[in-house]
Amino acid sequence: MAERAGKAGAIASGATGPGAIAPGAAGPGDGRIRAVIDSLSPTVDGGRFPAKRIAGESVRIEAHCFADGHDKLRVTMRWGARGKSESPTHETDMAAQGNDVWTAEFTPPAPGRYRCEFSAWVDHFESWRKELERREELADIRVALQVGAALARETAARAEGSDAANLADWASLLSDRAKDESAASSDAAALKALALDPARASLVARYPDTRFAALSSLEISVDRKRAGFSSWYELFPRSAAPDPTRHGDFKDVEARLPYVAEMGFDVLYFPPIQPIGRVNRKGVNNALEAKPGDVGSPWAIGSAEGGHKQILPALGSLEDFKRLNARARSLGMEIALDIAFQCAPDHPYVSEHPDWFKHRPDDSVQYAENPPKKYQDIYPFDFETDDWRALWEELKSVIEFWIGQDVRIFRVDNPHTKAFPFWEWVIGEIRSATPDAIFLAEAFTRPKVMHRLAKLGFTQSYTYFTWRNTKRELTEYFAELARGPGTQYFRPNVWPNTPDILQETLQSGLRAVFAARLILAATLSANYGIYGPTFELMESAPREAGSEEYLNSEKYQLRHWSLDRPDSLRSLIARMNRVRRENAALQSDRSLTFCPVDNEYLIAYRKSDAATGNIVLTVVNLDPHHVQSGWVELDLAPLGFEPGRPFQVHDLLSDQRYQWRDGRNFVMLDPARLPAHVFLLRRHLRSEHDFDYFV
Amino acid sequence: MAERAGKAGAIASGATGPGAIAPGAAGPGDGRIRAVIDSLSPTVDGGRFPAKRIAGESVRIEAHCFADGHDKLRVTMRWGARGKSESPTHETDMAAQGNDVWTAEFTPPAPGRYRCEFSAWVDHFESWRKELERREELADIRVALQVGAALARETAARAEGSDAANLADWASLLSDRAKDESAASSDAAALKALALDPARASLVARYPDTRFAALSSLEISVDRKRAGFSSWYELFPRSAAPDPTRHGDFKDVEARLPYVAEMGFDVLYFPPIQPIGRVNRKGVNNALEAKPGDVGSPWAIGSAEGGHKQILPALGSLEDFKRLNARARSLGMEIALDIAFQCAPDHPYVSEHPDWFKHRPDDSVQYAENPPKKYQDIYPFDFETDDWRALWEELKSVIEFWIGQDVRIFRVDNPHTKAFPFWEWVIGEIRSATPDAIFLAEAFTRPKVMHRLAKLGFTQSYTYFTWRNTKRELTEYFAELARGPGTQYFRPNVWPNTPDILQETLQSGLRAVFAARLILAATLSANYGIYGPTFELMESAPREAGSEEYLNSEKYQLRHWSLDRPDSLRSLIARMNRVRRENAALQSDRSLTFCPVDNEYLIAYRKSDAATGNIVLTVVNLDPHHVQSGWVELDLAPLGFEPGRPFQVHDLLSDQRYQWRDGRNFVMLDPARLPAHVFLLRRHLRSEHDFDYFV
Repeated sequence: MAERAGKAGAIASGATGPGAIAPGAAGPGDGRIRAVIDSLSPTVDGGRFPAKRIAGESVRIEAHCFADGHDKLRVTMRWGARGKSESPTHETDMAAQGNDVWTAEFTPPAPGRYRCEFSAWVDHFESWRKELERREELADIRVALQVGAALARETAARAEGSDAANLADWASLLSDRAKDESAASSDAAALKALALDPARASLVARYPDTRFAALSSLEISVDRKRAGFSSWYELFPRSAAPDPTRHGDFKDVEARLPYVAEMGFDVLYFPPIQPIGRVNRKGVNNALEAKPGDVGSPWAIGSAEGGHKQILPALGSLEDFKRLNARARSLGMEIALDIAFQCAPDHPYVSEHPDWFKHRPDDSVQYAENPPKKYQDIYPFDFETDDWRALWEELKSVIEFWIGQDVRIFRVDNPHTKAFPFWEWVIGEIRSATPDAIFLAEAFTRPKVMHRLAKLGFTQSYTYFTWRNTKRELTEYFAELARGPGTQYFRPNVWPNTPDILQETLQSGLRAVFAARLILAATLSANYGIYGPTFELMESAPREAGSEEYLNSEKYQLRHWSLDRPDSLRSLIARMNRVRRENAALQSDRSLTFCPVDNEYLIAYRKSDAATGNIVLTVVNLDPHHVQSGWVELDLAPLGFEPGRPFQVHDLLSDQRYQWRDGRNFVMLDPARLPAHVFLLRRHLRSEHDFDYFV
Repeated sequence: MAERAGKAGAIASGATGPGAIAPGAAGPGDGRIRAVIDSLSPTVDGGRFPAKRIAGESVRIEAHCFADGHDKLRVTMRWGARGKSESPTHETDMAAQGNDVWTAEFTPPAPGRYRCEFSAWVDHFESWRKELERREELADIRVALQVGAALARETAARAEGSDAANLADWASLLSDRAKDESAASSDAAALKALALDPARASLVARYPDTRFAALSSLEISVDRKRAGFSSWYELFPRSAAPDPTRHGDFKDVEARLPYVAEMGFDVLYFPPIQPIGRVNRKGVNNALEAKPGDVGSPWAIGSAEGGHKQILPALGSLEDFKRLNARARSLGMEIALDIAFQCAPDHPYVSEHPDWFKHRPDDSVQYAENPPKKYQDIYPFDFETDDWRALWEELKSVIEFWIGQDVRIFRVDNPHTKAFPFWEWVIGEIRSATPDAIFLAEAFTRPKVMHRLAKLGFTQSYTYFTWRNTKRELTEYFAELARGPGTQYFRPNVWPNTPDILQETLQSGLRAVFAARLILAATLSANYGIYGPTFELMESAPREAGSEEYLNSEKYQLRHWSLDRPDSLRSLIARMNRVRRENAALQSDRSLTFCPVDNEYLIAYRKSDAATGNIVLTVVNLDPHHVQSGWVELDLAPLGFEPGRPFQVHDLLSDQRYQWRDGRNFVMLDPARLPAHVFLLRRHLRSEHDFDYFV
């Protein structure tokens, strides 16, 4: 937050007189600013970054405000979207909650950056009223009336129109009655009632004396609903052809849309769709040299056919893409594109802007490498180039180009290998013009780097979920995500697999493992995704033992998928996504609470939604080989359940219903059938016939 | 902290091009600043206030630093006292601790405000070395040598004298060998060894390229040792006369000094010693009207005899005070004075500066009141006066005056009823000229107000200890003080009694209560104090039932004390203070750890000092009526004790010794004898004869 008033500008600059305190602050009255705004929330790093919220959801603001002595304080919050007008447009009084904590709530109506400005000042009129209420002696009350008259006159001078006249009249009345020592004016109670008139107080409150107000502010970054609740499906368009011998295109993807929509996904994400470099192209299974006909990696962007603003001709035209995009929207899905800021050697940028790349002593362009590994098909940008301003502008224009094609969601490839200031700038710029843009950071790297990217503006972040498998790993990691410092800015998007990560457990190929990983992802996190059709078809072969790469990965070749295989997980996925859509508890992450189970293979947790009362309890058997059972301990009193009173748990996957009580309840999960319960908790049983007892 | 690099100045100001990122930042190279300093500690409120430390004690600084990609980072910290020269004078490299955490330590030699400045940048030379180490192919190594030669040449251009020549020579050598394809120059290992020469790397490290360094900073407020460890004794000089009929004076206090010194106190604090107002003077037991001869409250400062810079003539002259002060210092004590910024109606300020006070409608000065209570003998200053600059300067000059009399410790009366910006300014100003000045905030008010005062610069703070009596109250409160957010800035100074607070438990008059409260204060907190001789003489009568005021309080009358009463606690106090002086564990608060005891009347806690290995375990019986016993659970493994191996506990109060083991140990405390053990833990038994078994 920017704490303006009382800030020790003078002290920091080594000035020696109290007059010197003024320059850094609001006005020449600074030394007289007695109110303090000590602490504001939500903020990130003391106000350096904005906290993140969702449009349409109430934002609760808290501040610690107080002044010296016993005077009454008044605190207001002005808020509004940061845009053309610098001043926030709405104003509300903050409410004292005791212990010097003041709160206010507001609901940002739309995505964008919001600014909240706070003022706190000693309210002399209310302080006077508070004291007058407790005065007992007539002489004191007479004096108080004269003080009140003076305050009313000062207020009248600030007031407008008839209010000014009303206040002046009232001031005269108070003054006259204070001086009138006749018996008729000597009723202490009547004098107090006159002075404490609530209607007059309301009028005075409209014209406060804010000359000595302490000021502070914070900003909130507000995203649209999908930023906080989304179900992603990743596919390679070029593998979408029904004919296994043909390169798939956008028309094939269009035909594939109903398949994805039926599974209930709302974000369909493609790896880069741009022209793929031919120079140093990688072959099948990442072979150093491509064979004729090899399609190369989509992340090696750029060739004679164009760069970041063009489409690989084999996929179709820009018109094809736009039609596909519109069709996806009509099915309730958005297409997300990949932003991979790097170039193939034959990308037009390389010849047009050689200074955007590092050069080797022989003047060749430096390819990516991590010795002894070399990535000769990829040229990274040099973010230390003297021409960085032009580079930044060009990269921004790439995002703007795709926004121009009605794309609003971007999965950003390896953002942690590009300069951090660039991301803060470019996301800020883009979202300033397009507040509904969403950026997912694909950074699987060190914790502090991932957090920094989220602070800088990335809307969602990939996580370590992909490698968290045991009960302990999952519990510790998701407890940290739900309640750690990142809560204000780090929105997890969890993936059981990606084209780069066939995690070891999935290499078992066991249906129970895939089902459990899907259900964990979909219930632990409001944002999740899978890389398909590999996932629903349980693709499990690694390139070699010990590798997390897929064998015959789509990253380097076309694949053909038998989507109608009877063992496909598609119907389970569809069911799971429907449960997510129908249960508000699964649409946010903050309420996540783990429940003890006396079996290390069983993990249980609940989420709840305060607005709807929706509560979902998930229990997963992490052992794909054996039936596991145990007692789940619930503590539902915080959610308003009466101890001992039975309630119904309704498994939304199997549709089975049981009667439970707050406390310990028995579960048994057979991985050969389904490794999880996703229970809706129903507080009131509908009828005798509406549930089965669990025996 | 002030995070300069990468700060979104451009975004905040609504600029639209990347060039706009420059103005708010270090230089035109801003967009190329790839390193990040994400988080610094210790800081308070994101750097708004300094953390507090003690001169001569090591300060550990932590920062989270990283850059995009895989390049090596270098991070330096410059530090120094903030004074005439704006630039810190010492520089050290920070050390990478893993997980992007970097640390450095420094020991501020003297009190004052210290500034630490941090730089983090991508170290291209070390990045090149790291990559070269992993290179395997001769061709790659040759290229790397050429890259290294270029880096060495760039470094040579920044270097001075012979270093420049050395680096240029080395650059030529690397370049020549890179190009020499003879068999003699084709030994990959030899080429690598040449390029990785550690001596050359050290030379390069002396001339880093910091053009694109991220910058940040923090400040630390460093106090002298006594700010962190002090034992206070408060007395009313006017009650120090041996003759009960006479007004005591500084000469009487001089005679009293050995008594106080023998008890082991190092701060002797006096209520205000200034002339006391005669107008509206309060009488004995706070009677509204004084009788002839009543001495009035020392906090009603000012009369015809002078104001805040004069001494009440009955106490003596300024020369008397200075001699007393010098004598106290010769006995290892400092005199602390009371700063009470308020006036009696006859204070010279009232007539000389009427605009420093609020006026009532009849133009009389507004006295202090909290309706229906009135304090007609006290005029508060009006910190909203238009003449606030002159008021601030005058109040500062009061403190400066007493500093001129060689006073360095001030107990500030009711700071929470004066404007907060004033305190930040005045303490900053005073400590800038007199870094060893200590200010104790006498604010027994709401938590956030007390914390604010500590953040603003008060060296020590009164606490709620006075009202924390049960095991649960004490445990919760001291755990919060030791590990809560205030750890960086809030230094507790705990008092079992004050002239304003005869807490209810002390009204029992029970010796066991006084002894327990003394030992709790002296062992729970490194800073503590008592108001004597009331405390050691166990004065216990309240003014009336339900009141915390003393009957016949010294605040309003002279008292005479029989210091040699045989039941005095003075020898226990002397013993306790000696234990504090001899055991470093009791001289700081951060190590406080409570130990479970299976008896609600027994409280146990340990403190330890890492530097000396000193460990003290205190066990107190909070029940003054009954013997209590129980099992204390120790967990000493974190302190390096071997489980199961016996060690000695030596009660420093009773001098008894027992043999204990890590784990559960039995204690029994009889309040009729002494309600506490203060155990020194001895890791190694000196000899068979040096301890007794506890049976």
